[in-house]
Amino acid sequence: MDAKAKLKKAIAQEEAQVQSQHFADRVFEAVRLKGSPICVGLDPKLELIPAIIKGKALKENKDKFKAAAEAILAFNKAIIDEIHDLVPVVKPQVACFEQYGYEGMRAYAETLKYAKSKGLLTIADVKRGDIGSTAEAYSHAYLGKVNVFDEQQFVFDADAVTLNPYLGIDSIKPFMDDARKYNKGIFMLVKTSNKSSSNLQDLEMTDGNAVYQITAHYLDSWGSDDLGDCGYSLLGAVVGATFPAQAEKLRKIMPEAIFLVPGYGAQGGTAKDVKACFDENGRGALVNSSRSIIYAYKEMPHIHEKDFALAAREAVLKMKKDLESEITFS
Amino acid sequence: MDAKAKLKKAIAQEEAQVQSQHFADRVFEAVRLKGSPICVGLDPKLELIPAIIKGKALKENKDKFKAAAEAILAFNKAIIDEIHDLVPVVKPQVACFEQYGYEGMRAYAETLKYAKSKGLLTIADVKRGDIGSTAEAYSHAYLGKVNVFDEQQFVFDADAVTLNPYLGIDSIKPFMDDARKYNKGIFMLVKTSNKSSSNLQDLEMTDGNAVYQITAHYLDSWGSDDLGDCGYSLLGAVVGATFPAQAEKLRKIMPEAIFLVPGYGAQGGTAKDVKACFDENGRGALVNSSRSIIYAYKEMPHIHEKDFALAAREAVLKMKKDLESEITFS
Repeated sequence: MDAKAKLKKAIAQEEAQVQSQHFADRVFEAVRLKGSPICVGLDPKLELIPAIIKGKALKENKDKFKAAAEAILAFNKAIIDEIHDLVPVVKPQVACFEQYGYEGMRAYAETLKYAKSKGLLTIADVKRGDIGSTAEAYSHAYLGKVNVFDEQQFVFDADAVTLNPYLGIDSIKPFMDDARKYNKGIFMLVKTSNKSSSNLQDLEMTDGNAVYQITAHYLDSWGSDDLGDCGYSLLGAVVGATFPAQAEKLRKIMPEAIFLVPGYGAQGGTAKDVKACFDENGRGALVNSSRSIIYAYKEMPHIHEKDFALAAREAVLKMKKDLESEITFS
Repeated sequence: MDAKAKLKKAIAQEEAQVQSQHFADRVFEAVRLKGSPICVGLDPKLELIPAIIKGKALKENKDKFKAAAEAILAFNKAIIDEIHDLVPVVKPQVACFEQYGYEGMRAYAETLKYAKSKGLLTIADVKRGDIGSTAEAYSHAYLGKVNVFDEQQFVFDADAVTLNPYLGIDSIKPFMDDARKYNKGIFMLVKTSNKSSSNLQDLEMTDGNAVYQITAHYLDSWGSDDLGDCGYSLLGAVVGATFPAQAEKLRKIMPEAIFLVPGYGAQGGTAKDVKACFDENGRGALVNSSRSIIYAYKEMPHIHEKDFALAAREAVLKMKKDLESEITFS
């Protein structure tokens, strides 16, 4: 058995175990195993997918939506094949699939399933936010099980979801119930990486806090009863890499929350910027990059289009090195 | 041609025309035509659907998810058949479909299409909120057209969507572009009907306003360039029936926004409560009811389960009378 095969076997064995562990411990274990806190965002866009994949999909599928779905699925699988031994987590962005209708959603389910089969943790980036039985339905879809004619069945079966807090705890609680039941996790939006996140999130309250800080305090209190052995909660936070000063405050308000950090790379966040999202031991954050990884081939003149997945691998290795230049992981 | 057939023809003719009109004018015209501002929420839940429908779907479909999707679609169609001449708008809640995976999403597309074919305006209750090209993808999915191998195609093709404002204007703008282009509309969450809406929405700012009031001011300014002949904008607001005092303030802050009002009926909102959501002419609001309409048969001992759609019709007529007892529509 060569080194790569051994590593694969070890990953498969450990993956089989973690299903029975708390979500935060699963994240910590996966980061340790892969030696990096990188989350690769799978945001497949037909117009950026290599012609060779699109041509094949069009040839094999008469229906154009089906062909689009098959193309993005094939693209995702090729990327996953090349990066799964380097990163602990992938985060497929559901909008990119949803735009191709139900065929796209089939590709979403298949992408999650494939990532899981390769030992990756999956975050369904859905940013849902609704209440009561509607929130329950979303939770059953993405984290838990749905009742289909008296059978309890997983549907998308992701390891975690992203959620929007605007509707308050009513919109989070059903997911926390499922997260507890199935050892899954939640990343709630706190301070997002986009420019206009300031519109609502930065509004200043009478007590001197901004809305994003209050959101962080809620998150800290809602998640504090559900800690893993690592000391982190199943309820994590989305904190953009583009606002390092705010991230520093937020790390203090939410010492038990794993940070999911978008905004690194194409959006402008640097390794220095994301440093504040980690704890003093270099733990407790996942740094996401989407476009800079999966479309890296567009920026690499030495790489042929057909080798797009190798370019993604190269980009992950480069990102790993970049993060290590600023942060000491343990 | 009898009266009902004449009405149907008139509805079809007018519906064909409104596609070229501004969204707010389409809403006003539809409310005038149907003589009520009622929006029926289609929140199909398998466990509440009559056994006769479920039995048929299970008999015809081996795959349980497909059977579930066919059952909720058949249920929706039967409801739509009985209520489309009474109400201007239906609002299918996507979570109820999404929980059955891609088969559920197929039923979502079919439900929207069927409602449209019956002359109804459709609001895709998706409460999405994301940024940049992700927000664009959602917008293309629900309001606009997606590029599939160089063909521009509608996907879910709803008349309007609900959106979450937590990420600011970045998450609204792409939808406004499509709304302008295709004469469609948006309802942005401002003050939701659930109890924990207070967590974030009621936080008090240094200027004395609550977050929901600031959100309302944003909405008013973002929507003010896109008014129809009726004086209302393509950018509307979700304002819960359960907080009438807040609704009164909000009507003043957003004089050009059509209010989509959830929380009437099962959630506790009364006709008196929703009055403040209308303008002084009894216009500018759509009152939604979901459970109290579509599952009315559960509360009507005189109605056989197989007549569930007739029960929904009876419930709509009752709601219409109830609203008319408090509000004079014009």
